[in-house]
Amino acid sequence: MTSCPLPFEPKDTVTMAHGAGGRHTFRLIQNIFAPAFHLSSSQLSDSAIVGDEEKWAISTDAHVVSPLFFPGGDIGTLAANGTCNDLAMVGAEPKWLAVSWILEEGITFDTLNRISQSLAAAAAQNGATIIAGDTKVVPKGKGDGLYLSSAGFGLHRMPFIPSPSRLKPGLELIISGDIGRHAIAIASLRDNSIGFSAEIASDCCPLWPLVAALLNNSLYPAAMRDCTRGGLATVLAEWAEESNLGMELEEEAVPLLEPVRAACDLLGFDPLYLACEGRFLLAIEKEKVEDTLNLLRQFPDGKMAARIGRVTNANPGRAVARQPYGTERILDRLSGEILPRIC
Amino acid sequence: MTSCPLPFEPKDTVTMAHGAGGRHTFRLIQNIFAPAFHLSSSQLSDSAIVGDEEKWAISTDAHVVSPLFFPGGDIGTLAANGTCNDLAMVGAEPKWLAVSWILEEGITFDTLNRISQSLAAAAAQNGATIIAGDTKVVPKGKGDGLYLSSAGFGLHRMPFIPSPSRLKPGLELIISGDIGRHAIAIASLRDNSIGFSAEIASDCCPLWPLVAALLNNSLYPAAMRDCTRGGLATVLAEWAEESNLGMELEEEAVPLLEPVRAACDLLGFDPLYLACEGRFLLAIEKEKVEDTLNLLRQFPDGKMAARIGRVTNANPGRAVARQPYGTERILDRLSGEILPRIC
Repeated sequence: MTSCPLPFEPKDTVTMAHGAGGRHTFRLIQNIFAPAFHLSSSQLSDSAIVGDEEKWAISTDAHVVSPLFFPGGDIGTLAANGTCNDLAMVGAEPKWLAVSWILEEGITFDTLNRISQSLAAAAAQNGATIIAGDTKVVPKGKGDGLYLSSAGFGLHRMPFIPSPSRLKPGLELIISGDIGRHAIAIASLRDNSIGFSAEIASDCCPLWPLVAALLNNSLYPAAMRDCTRGGLATVLAEWAEESNLGMELEEEAVPLLEPVRAACDLLGFDPLYLACEGRFLLAIEKEKVEDTLNLLRQFPDGKMAARIGRVTNANPGRAVARQPYGTERILDRLSGEILPRIC
Repeated sequence: MTSCPLPFEPKDTVTMAHGAGGRHTFRLIQNIFAPAFHLSSSQLSDSAIVGDEEKWAISTDAHVVSPLFFPGGDIGTLAANGTCNDLAMVGAEPKWLAVSWILEEGITFDTLNRISQSLAAAAAQNGATIIAGDTKVVPKGKGDGLYLSSAGFGLHRMPFIPSPSRLKPGLELIISGDIGRHAIAIASLRDNSIGFSAEIASDCCPLWPLVAALLNNSLYPAAMRDCTRGGLATVLAEWAEESNLGMELEEEAVPLLEPVRAACDLLGFDPLYLACEGRFLLAIEKEKVEDTLNLLRQFPDGKMAARIGRVTNANPGRAVARQPYGTERILDRLSGEILPRIC
């Protein structure tokens, strides 16, 4: 599938779209990082499993969210949850975090202190301990308050590594909650002229507690992925490509808060492409769907969990969204950039 | 020991000195990060050991060096060597690296490609594999080309964890090579008006091969530390404080290339405070000094290794440099900033 390039898209430099987690980011990995590091592009993801005796998962994230504080969290909660969620998505229990700070000269100690406290609190909610750190400072005008990179180390706790390569026709797709709140929370801060009737808080939260509950009840998803940059649609498109199977989404089954739907209408956003920071897609056998939903719904962050589609033999390599009256649309990876610096 | 504060030092915001790796960085850790993360400030260093069955070392570094390319390396070599060297310093064999990129909009693919290649080559020299990554993009004017954070994961290979707490009076101090080349290589690029007679290349290099050779020959240093930001003097001051013993340095025994000495004279730098990126200090028993030096000198990066001092009961908590004619000076942690964005 091809897309129409923007008329003046630069061909040899990085654009904001390369940070959006969609098609451009994938190209950067495919054309530059994967060949340099002698990896296939699917190997170079944000987490990996290593080790012989014990199996460890390693993940990393850079965080450049703007503004630093938003309803429902800040760059500190985002860093701890984002990195630990990547571990949870491969079935690993978050254990250790290493954080590196790039501070812009002039940032206040108070800001740094508040963010450190949120980072520590979110790490604790994930069961992770911060054990190593590094700090660099760049001159005023060479940063934007602060950037925060985190790396996570977790112990693998599943009988297998969940992965799109384990997807099979007939598996059902479940989303752990309502989508798009993180993106709308950030968007509402960017444009003060938009008078949202209700403040929408980010969905940023730890996913390990939900995953741990599933594993403790022998509910092992074939694949899991958190719907961050690029949203649910990009995850579905990636799974379709990586498994060469079809992903069929029942669009009206996707849980969405009414204020998020209203904001999307107003701003012209497609909710399926909006970033979440505490929602994940999982694929599991049909006979386990009910138990899975019941378990997820016991958590405040999982109470809107829903079955939203299935893996099919039809449409191999494609994600297709079905609308109530029988129309369909193909979901591709996010192209370009909806909201820069969302995380 | 107290120091005279600069007259107008801001009291509540981050300054460039907080990124210099000396006294100000220590205060930031002591006042903000350590309390938030419930750690003692000596626990929150750039590497840590975890795990029950196998012992793993974890380290992290943010890199903001300017310019991105310098004689002897670039930000990619610096990231791989810097992070792997932190693992080597706790006696761990580098195994895995996770890297996160913060790209400034407009950076060329060519630059990114060159840096990825150097990163991969330096990782390979350390025996480490890059297995996880993340990429974010910030708008033009909110970065400076690129910043690169790396986290390292290594297997601990020593019967104990080398640490300043294992220092004892009578141990001898060895430096693995000549100091200060990295700082002078960067300084020479910053100020083109300074006409150095010879181009000085950074000492940036992998330290694990040198450490591995020591361990394979049962030469186990009580403590090791690479002399990065803050230089040899800051390491000595930290060891003195952390062990509450004296560190006695014979200043004329410290290996220094003639062009580095000349540049220091010209620029008014104290070579003991200059950053290296491939030199480390180690403490070992007197009877093992000769074997240690012989082994280190077999490596191109260790051929100027030298015995430079000893651990003493005298002057507890202080590092003292003795000069040839009997004069002495006390070495404190670096205060303020000599050269910003050295790494």
